Amino acid sequence: MRKGDSMTKIIIDALGSDEGPEMVGEALKLALEERDFSAVFVGPKDIYAKYFSSENRVSLIEATEYIANTDSPARAIRRKKDASVVLGLEALNESGDVFLTAGSTGALLAGAYFITRRIEGIQRACLGATIPNPSGGTILVDTGANADTTPSMLYEFAILGSSFAEHTLHRKNPRVGLLNIGTEEGKGDKRTQEAYELLKESPLNFVGNVEARELLSGSCDVLVTDGFVGNVALKSLEGTAKTLFSRIKTGIYSSLRTKIGGMLLKPVFAGLSKDYNYQEHGGAPLLGTRKALFKAHGNSSTKTFRLAILEALEYGENFDEEEIIQQLKEIHDGKSSN
Amino acid sequence: MRKGDSMTKIIIDALGSDEGPEMVGEALKLALEERDFSAVFVGPKDIYAKYFSSENRVSLIEATEYIANTDSPARAIRRKKDASVVLGLEALNESGDVFLTAGSTGALLAGAYFITRRIEGIQRACLGATIPNPSGGTILVDTGANADTTPSMLYEFAILGSSFAEHTLHRKNPRVGLLNIGTEEGKGDKRTQEAYELLKESPLNFVGNVEARELLSGSCDVLVTDGFVGNVALKSLEGTAKTLFSRIKTGIYSSLRTKIGGMLLKPVFAGLSKDYNYQEHGGAPLLGTRKALFKAHGNSSTKTFRLAILEALEYGENFDEEEIIQQLKEIHDGKSSN
Repeated sequence: MRKGDSMTKIIIDALGSDEGPEMVGEALKLALEERDFSAVFVGPKDIYAKYFSSENRVSLIEATEYIANTDSPARAIRRKKDASVVLGLEALNESGDVFLTAGSTGALLAGAYFITRRIEGIQRACLGATIPNPSGGTILVDTGANADTTPSMLYEFAILGSSFAEHTLHRKNPRVGLLNIGTEEGKGDKRTQEAYELLKESPLNFVGNVEARELLSGSCDVLVTDGFVGNVALKSLEGTAKTLFSRIKTGIYSSLRTKIGGMLLKPVFAGLSKDYNYQEHGGAPLLGTRKALFKAHGNSSTKTFRLAILEALEYGENFDEEEIIQQLKEIHDGKSSN
Repeated sequence: MRKGDSMTKIIIDALGSDEGPEMVGEALKLALEERDFSAVFVGPKDIYAKYFSSENRVSLIEATEYIANTDSPARAIRRKKDASVVLGLEALNESGDVFLTAGSTGALLAGAYFITRRIEGIQRACLGATIPNPSGGTILVDTGANADTTPSMLYEFAILGSSFAEHTLHRKNPRVGLLNIGTEEGKGDKRTQEAYELLKESPLNFVGNVEARELLSGSCDVLVTDGFVGNVALKSLEGTAKTLFSRIKTGIYSSLRTKIGGMLLKPVFAGLSKDYNYQEHGGAPLLGTRKALFKAHGNSSTKTFRLAILEALEYGENFDEEEIIQQLKEIHDGKSSN
């Protein structure tokens, strides 16, 4: 939560990304040139010294250990007391607006459960990814935090996604859709059918079933689904865009004629590539936690991680646990009065 | 099953598509100009008379009733005795190599269960869609016939998909992948984890977990998943390709410079659009049934339906129930000897 006029404070886990702590140092330096905020660098002392010895907005929490993707997250978060994600989340609990990591998603999730805790009444935290579209983006929840969900969990994802869309993406009365394999009521698997009933009765602005074909159309602000399905939908989108761009590129380089064509169309491709290359998007919030947590891609480049820092700051500044609790309460009240 | 040197016989449901029976008549006429086969047109007498009065390769089963997408499939298939899909499947049981419809998928599935029946030992029939890629295509099973599956059903989809890849797509020892949200063993929801164990122990050429990002890479010949997830993956792919092409088109028309660029790149886009526009692909087999059944898109154009006829003929010619039963048997023997 924003504290009056003081600078927003971000805690950054410098370990666990594919690129290592140097990348994080560079990205943070770039972000600080662009915006004024304070940061805690959780990582190796030498990297901190290299980038921030004369930068008084950045402080250090020394860490050399981290939780790898191959570790069992729940066990590691309780045993590896000196891991960067543990030290970072503890620092966030003490003082800070948002935490950012490009490390293990499992570790972040376990840390959210054991260190920062979930919001009262929320069964599961979920990952939201913003899908680019002409309406400014749809937040897809969950994109991979939970692979086995129940209808009531999907309902909670809808509440959390709606709150994020309203406060961080600044949408009025966000339209909530349910990812399904047909638009008619009664379509889909049992879980989705039951979630439909819950959403239909809720005070959320539920617009019904939405097919994966509509992911990029912007027909809703929030698209709710299970973490397994959401992850598949997102990666299918990313993989398709990547393959198409790569095939266009190969086609362009195939002859002089097409090379000239490619040159003339450069502005068109540049805009598209920015929207559909997930490396151009910073990351995703972990919703449902008592503190603002943000996940950057494990293979983030300096450019992407810099963007993730800016996005995380935006999320941290607009995050208000009390407001979400109030919304949950209103929804429960709304439901009981129906 | 192919009957000696006689012509392949396809039974075509002319009703239930968005475009209506005229489109089916036109498409069949075009296909007959291209290939020699015999067909049964199940639809209105006047359309048959218009297109095939002087064509002795096409016979008529008159039908004016059909099962709509809004009907309850299982009930309709038993009650609407004169519906085109019912008459067509009964004709297939009597004599025919393959049945093709652009009508309700639910009705086809119900017809497969109640009229043509499943192959012995198969719990569920599943839809396979061929995803284009440099290796000649990956068959994704199931793409929507079953929204609630068990691990043993996924295992059967793998067997059926592998058989289709071998016999219709002519792949030697097809590589079978499991659609998952990570490549490591142990990833995913419970259903997928259990299916992994079954596939690992099977004599199929199992290559492990495959992420949705790889859909277009051709890293496997068969990609196994639940019908809900497969449908989402496929529609996400289609929607992304469609949106990208539409945005490129808009970009091209935005200025003289880009219009010239678009003209020069026309051959590049034409090839891509053919691969990734699902309207360019005819349809998908319904696997696991005792007869060859093929589903065309509900919104098929004449051009697409013509292609569906040719694909369905290919499937019908290579379909051999006995061979699948033998494969199932070999796999069960293989398992018990492990």
